[in-house]
Amino acid sequence: MTNPRAERVKQVRALAQRAVRRRAGAFLVEGPQSVREAVAEAAEHVRDLYVGPDAADRYPDLVTAARHAGVRVRPGTADVLEAMSPDAQQLVAVVDAVVPDRADVLAARPRLVAVLSQVRDPGNAGTVVRAADAAGAGGVVLTGASVDLHNPKVVRSTAGSLFHLPVATGGELADVVVDLRAAGLTVLAADGRGSHDLDDLLDVAGHAPAGVPDLTAPTAWVFGNEAWGMSDDDRALADAVVRVPIRGRAESLNLATAAAVCLFASARAQR
Amino acid sequence: MTNPRAERVKQVRALAQRAVRRRAGAFLVEGPQSVREAVAEAAEHVRDLYVGPDAADRYPDLVTAARHAGVRVRPGTADVLEAMSPDAQQLVAVVDAVVPDRADVLAARPRLVAVLSQVRDPGNAGTVVRAADAAGAGGVVLTGASVDLHNPKVVRSTAGSLFHLPVATGGELADVVVDLRAAGLTVLAADGRGSHDLDDLLDVAGHAPAGVPDLTAPTAWVFGNEAWGMSDDDRALADAVVRVPIRGRAESLNLATAAAVCLFASARAQR
Repeated sequence: MTNPRAERVKQVRALAQRAVRRRAGAFLVEGPQSVREAVAEAAEHVRDLYVGPDAADRYPDLVTAARHAGVRVRPGTADVLEAMSPDAQQLVAVVDAVVPDRADVLAARPRLVAVLSQVRDPGNAGTVVRAADAAGAGGVVLTGASVDLHNPKVVRSTAGSLFHLPVATGGELADVVVDLRAAGLTVLAADGRGSHDLDDLLDVAGHAPAGVPDLTAPTAWVFGNEAWGMSDDDRALADAVVRVPIRGRAESLNLATAAAVCLFASARAQR
Repeated sequence: MTNPRAERVKQVRALAQRAVRRRAGAFLVEGPQSVREAVAEAAEHVRDLYVGPDAADRYPDLVTAARHAGVRVRPGTADVLEAMSPDAQQLVAVVDAVVPDRADVLAARPRLVAVLSQVRDPGNAGTVVRAADAAGAGGVVLTGASVDLHNPKVVRSTAGSLFHLPVATGGELADVVVDLRAAGLTVLAADGRGSHDLDDLLDVAGHAPAGVPDLTAPTAWVFGNEAWGMSDDDRALADAVVRVPIRGRAESLNLATAAAVCLFASARAQR
């Protein structure tokens, strides 16, 4: 492909828009790290892999792996790849937007789950998916009022983790919590006004008194909106509300930062 | 102020550029959260506070506090404020770029310090400053090869924490480490290839065997570049290299996420 104004180039670029993604049933995966994971974990869903000349030189193993996995590799000029995405280092995959059912995610009886409720910032959402993966979580749930999972910035921020663990989307938090509890998970809301201190919970993990959540138990963490936190109604849905202890004078933590601290505390307790 | 093309408006806007900041010796503080902290903690350094009509309605207490603190408040039209900064919700402060000496920061004998070495992403740098504040750190050091502390995106990402704890800038990591050690701090480099596991260090905190860093001791954490991590030479400068345990299949953690997990582990150990 040599013409950056070709119809196909426009179609690929348009997948940056949510309405176009919904219509096409596909999304963009950009850059070597994410494309490598898409090819390794979901080659059957990769419709096309567009590769620029510099990327072909720099990542020959990736291109070979894609071809071996049966992925259609389409070489393009630097201009074509730049027109498709300026943030992709000349590697753009168009991938089927397949999302697992929440019921299937929970049927696998995960011991650690992250739930994003009304999280709107794509970088935050993707970074939490990546942190959940690193903490060994069995899945992530994005409620319906959250940012679109397949927003290119979300996908980039997951750094490939989107293809490592199941991420279910949609639904109201109230319904999600019912399902989490039915799957045997204790539901903890992370909130600066929580009545439990995360460090105190780590201290009693494995021998928590009645009424205190035990971090060694299978746990779902709910994280709310980055600006306004969680509503009283949403907090009331949880079994307990937990705060990350703030020692300095910061008012709060960045959402993805707080989520990582909570998820790694659970991972540590569940060792 | 009513003319968005006025010379003063251009001068304020130009502070988004590093060269202009250096010449002016000033930087931009944008948005209610950061401006509030600048007024509360460093009013003597606020040269001007520009306020749009909606912000004046919405944050009357902030404007009153600024006036009481002797800050020159300059009302402007919505167009003027938008021209100064589209990301400021009509609140823009021009603040003296005063940076503490590293020697002064360390003379206060902090028990927890975060060092950013060659961190280039402004959002990451600011988020680490915010996390360091929340973890109760006594200071942050950005080495010379890192992003400019007064980059507007860095300032925004600190969410006001820039005015809560001293952040020193400049210098080579090798020189910084000499000073950290002289101030009685154990220097730990955070790196995915570290020989010590953070959870193991938490397990032995307070009774670490010889050769194992004790997290209850005064500690400086060094965090490297988001893309390429730390060089062998930089890692060799530290007393020990520590990895955050990765349990899932993520290759690594986002830099700010990893930093938060390390800083909160130290804060917990030092309780």
